[in-house]
Amino acid sequence: MISVAIMGHGVVGSGVAEILTTHKQKLFASIGEEIYVKHILDLREFPDSPLADRFTKDFNDILNDREVRVVVEVMGGLNPAYDFVKKCLKSGKSVVTSNKELVAAHGAELLQIAKDENVNFLFEASVGGGIPIIRPISQCLVANIVDEIAGILNGTTNFILTKMIEDGMQFDAALKLAQDLGFAERNPAADIEGHDACRKICILASLAFGKHVYPNFVHTEGITEITLEDVKYAEAYNCVIKLIGRVKRLDDGKIDIIVAPMFVPNKSQLANIDYEFNGIMVRGDCTGDVVFYGKGAGKLPTASAVVADVVDCCKHLKTRKFLFWADGNGDNILPYEESVTAMYIRANTTFELAQEVFGCIDKIEKADSPEGEIAFVTAQLPYGEIIEKIAALESRGAKVISKIRIGDL
Amino acid sequence: MISVAIMGHGVVGSGVAEILTTHKQKLFASIGEEIYVKHILDLREFPDSPLADRFTKDFNDILNDREVRVVVEVMGGLNPAYDFVKKCLKSGKSVVTSNKELVAAHGAELLQIAKDENVNFLFEASVGGGIPIIRPISQCLVANIVDEIAGILNGTTNFILTKMIEDGMQFDAALKLAQDLGFAERNPAADIEGHDACRKICILASLAFGKHVYPNFVHTEGITEITLEDVKYAEAYNCVIKLIGRVKRLDDGKIDIIVAPMFVPNKSQLANIDYEFNGIMVRGDCTGDVVFYGKGAGKLPTASAVVADVVDCCKHLKTRKFLFWADGNGDNILPYEESVTAMYIRANTTFELAQEVFGCIDKIEKADSPEGEIAFVTAQLPYGEIIEKIAALESRGAKVISKIRIGDL
Repeated sequence: MISVAIMGHGVVGSGVAEILTTHKQKLFASIGEEIYVKHILDLREFPDSPLADRFTKDFNDILNDREVRVVVEVMGGLNPAYDFVKKCLKSGKSVVTSNKELVAAHGAELLQIAKDENVNFLFEASVGGGIPIIRPISQCLVANIVDEIAGILNGTTNFILTKMIEDGMQFDAALKLAQDLGFAERNPAADIEGHDACRKICILASLAFGKHVYPNFVHTEGITEITLEDVKYAEAYNCVIKLIGRVKRLDDGKIDIIVAPMFVPNKSQLANIDYEFNGIMVRGDCTGDVVFYGKGAGKLPTASAVVADVVDCCKHLKTRKFLFWADGNGDNILPYEESVTAMYIRANTTFELAQEVFGCIDKIEKADSPEGEIAFVTAQLPYGEIIEKIAALESRGAKVISKIRIGDL
Repeated sequence: MISVAIMGHGVVGSGVAEILTTHKQKLFASIGEEIYVKHILDLREFPDSPLADRFTKDFNDILNDREVRVVVEVMGGLNPAYDFVKKCLKSGKSVVTSNKELVAAHGAELLQIAKDENVNFLFEASVGGGIPIIRPISQCLVANIVDEIAGILNGTTNFILTKMIEDGMQFDAALKLAQDLGFAERNPAADIEGHDACRKICILASLAFGKHVYPNFVHTEGITEITLEDVKYAEAYNCVIKLIGRVKRLDDGKIDIIVAPMFVPNKSQLANIDYEFNGIMVRGDCTGDVVFYGKGAGKLPTASAVVADVVDCCKHLKTRKFLFWADGNGDNILPYEESVTAMYIRANTTFELAQEVFGCIDKIEKADSPEGEIAFVTAQLPYGEIIEKIAALESRGAKVISKIRIGDL
C-alpha cells in the first residue's frame, strides 16, 4: 500500500479523489499495490464526503507523515502551493501537480530540488488537461529534435472564437455564454488576455528546449480585440482565427516564442479544433508533425492525467523519471520584434497607399466591407518592421483598425 | 555504455542505426549513458555503411553476447523474427520491435516470457509509426477505463481513399499511384484487404482490454470493392469513406471489434485525416475523446518510435515497464453478426421495396444517379439481420451493388 496526500479539494482535487476511489482495481493492476488516500488538505469542510475522515486543515499533517510518498498539489495559484510543494520535495516526497502557474513560474527550481532529493516532480495535467503531451514529448519523441510546437492551449478562448466563427456571435456575447456554461471564470482575464496559454507554451518550450522560459519573456496577445469583421476577413482568406501558442527552434539555437491570435489556414490540422477542445502540434525532425487533440480542461480529464502521474510516481519510488530542464534567463529567446511573420491588416486607407508602404501585399476581397476600408496580407517581415510600416501608413492619413498574424501552421 | 543490437537493416532498421548515430548527444542527455550499436544482423552486405564493421550474418553473435542488453527487431514477418525474439528474451535481453505481425500473432506469449525473465518487450512503433499511442494508452490513460478505440491505421489505404475522394480517381489508378510513390507495396494485399489495419487494432485492443485478440478473431473487410459512386453517395450524406479499425467495450464486458470501410461524418475528427496520415481516437471514461495524429509509417518516423523504446529499455534495465496482457481465446469478442450498425446500401430496386424490407430507411439523394438505382441508410441493426434483409430484398428481384457501414465516430 502506497500512501498519498491530496492538497486541494476543488474541481480537480475532488476528481482525483474520485478516480483513485472508483478506478482502484485498474490502478492496482497497473502498480501491483494499492494507492491509499491518507490526507486531503482543504480549509473548507466536507462532512458528506466518503473520505471525510481524511481531511485536514494543517499542511504539517502531510509534511510530517513519513508514510506519505506522493503528494498531489491541485490547489492552484502560487501561494501557498509553491511553498508547500517545495517543502514536500525537500522532505523526500514525490509531487504531482496540475498547476501550470506554478510550473511556469518555478519549474526549473522545483525540478532541481526533485533531482537533488531523488524524487519525482510530474505535471502532465498542467498542459492540455487530459491530453497526453508532457510524457509523449519527453519520452515518445525523445529520439527527435523538436523543431516546433504550436497549439490551441486554452479552451475558453477557443470556445469564444468558435462561437464567433460558427454562429456570428459578438465577442462579449460569446464570453458571457462561456461564463454561463462554466467554460470561463467570472474574471476571465487570464484566459482572454492569453496568460493561461502563455504559461502552457512556456512549459512545453522549457521541456522541449531544455531551458526554463518564464512567461514574462514571451510576447503575449489575447483575443479581446478580435471582431466579427476580422472573423469574416479570415473566412474570405480560407482561414479561421485561433489563439495560438507557438515556439520554433531557429538555426542559431535560439527559439522564437509567442502567444497571439493567428489566421490558421482551413487545411491545417489545428483549424478543425473547435469549442472547448485543445490541440497541440509537435514537429519533430524524425516524426514530422504529430498532433494531440482532446479536452484541455474539466474535472475528470484533468484529474485522470494527475492520477496517471501518481501511478508513475508509485512505480518509480526508488528511481527518478528523467524530466528536467535548466534555469533560463531569456538569452535563448529571439526578441519578438525580430520574429518574422506575414500580417493581416485591416485599415481605412487605399490599396495603392498600402502597397506603396508595404510593397507586395495580398488584398482580401470580402462582400459588404464598409466603404473606405481595405484588408490585406503583407509579405513575411520582421514584426518590428511591420509596426514601423503601420506607423508610416498612419502618418499618411490611414487608420489601422486591426492586425492579426498569419500562422504558418 | 549500453550495447544494443539491431536485427534487420532495411528501411526501418537503417533509420534506427541513423538516429542512434545522429541523435547520440540528445539520447545521452536523456539516459546518462551512451548507446552503442554493437551488432547489426542482415544477410546482405553493406560495405559502404559507416557501421560496416558491426554487421553479422549470424544471429548467435547477438544471442551469445552477454554485453548486449537490448535487441531491436526490425526484420518484419514472422520467421525468423519470432524465433529470434523469443530466444533474446529468454536469454535476458530486452527486445524492441516495430513488427506488428509479430506482436499481433505472438504478443501475449512474448509479454509473458518478458515478464518471467524480468526484461522489457516494447513495440511502440508497431502501431501508428511515429505517432505515440502504445505508451499514451498504457501510461497516460492508465486512470481511464477505455470505452472505445477507433482509427485510421493504414496509410496506404487512406492515401488511396483520399485520392478517390479529392481527385475522383478510380481505385486501380489510385493504387498504382500509391505504388509509384512508394506508399504501397508491389503486393498490396495486406494493406488493401485490411489485414495490416487488423493487426494494429488487435494490438490496441489487447493492450486496452487485457486479453490477446488474434487477427483471425476479427471480422475484416478491405477497400477493394469501394467505387467512385460510393464515394459520391458518401459525400451526399456529408461523410467520407475511411478504412476504420474499431473496438468498443460492451456493457457485458465483451468487446465489439471490426476492420471495415465506413462512412465517417465530415464533422468527426477522423474525417480530416487524409493521404498517408494515420489518426487514432481513444475514448476514455474520464478523458473523453483523445485523438493522436501523424505519419503512420516511413523510415524516420517509425525508427524514432523504435529508438524511444530503446531509450526506455536502457532506463529500465533493472526494472520492468508494466506492459502486459494475458492470452485470449476469443471468448470476450462479440460475434460480428451481432454487432449493431447502420448500413449504407446501394441497390437496383425501388425505394418502396427497400422500405418494405428494411422498415425505416433514410434515402440518399444524389445528382446523376443511374436510372433504377437507389441508395439508402438503414436503422441501427445487428449485422446478421442486415444480411438477411439483403437476401430478402434480392429474393424479390433487387440487386444490391454495395454496402458500407455507417461509422458512429
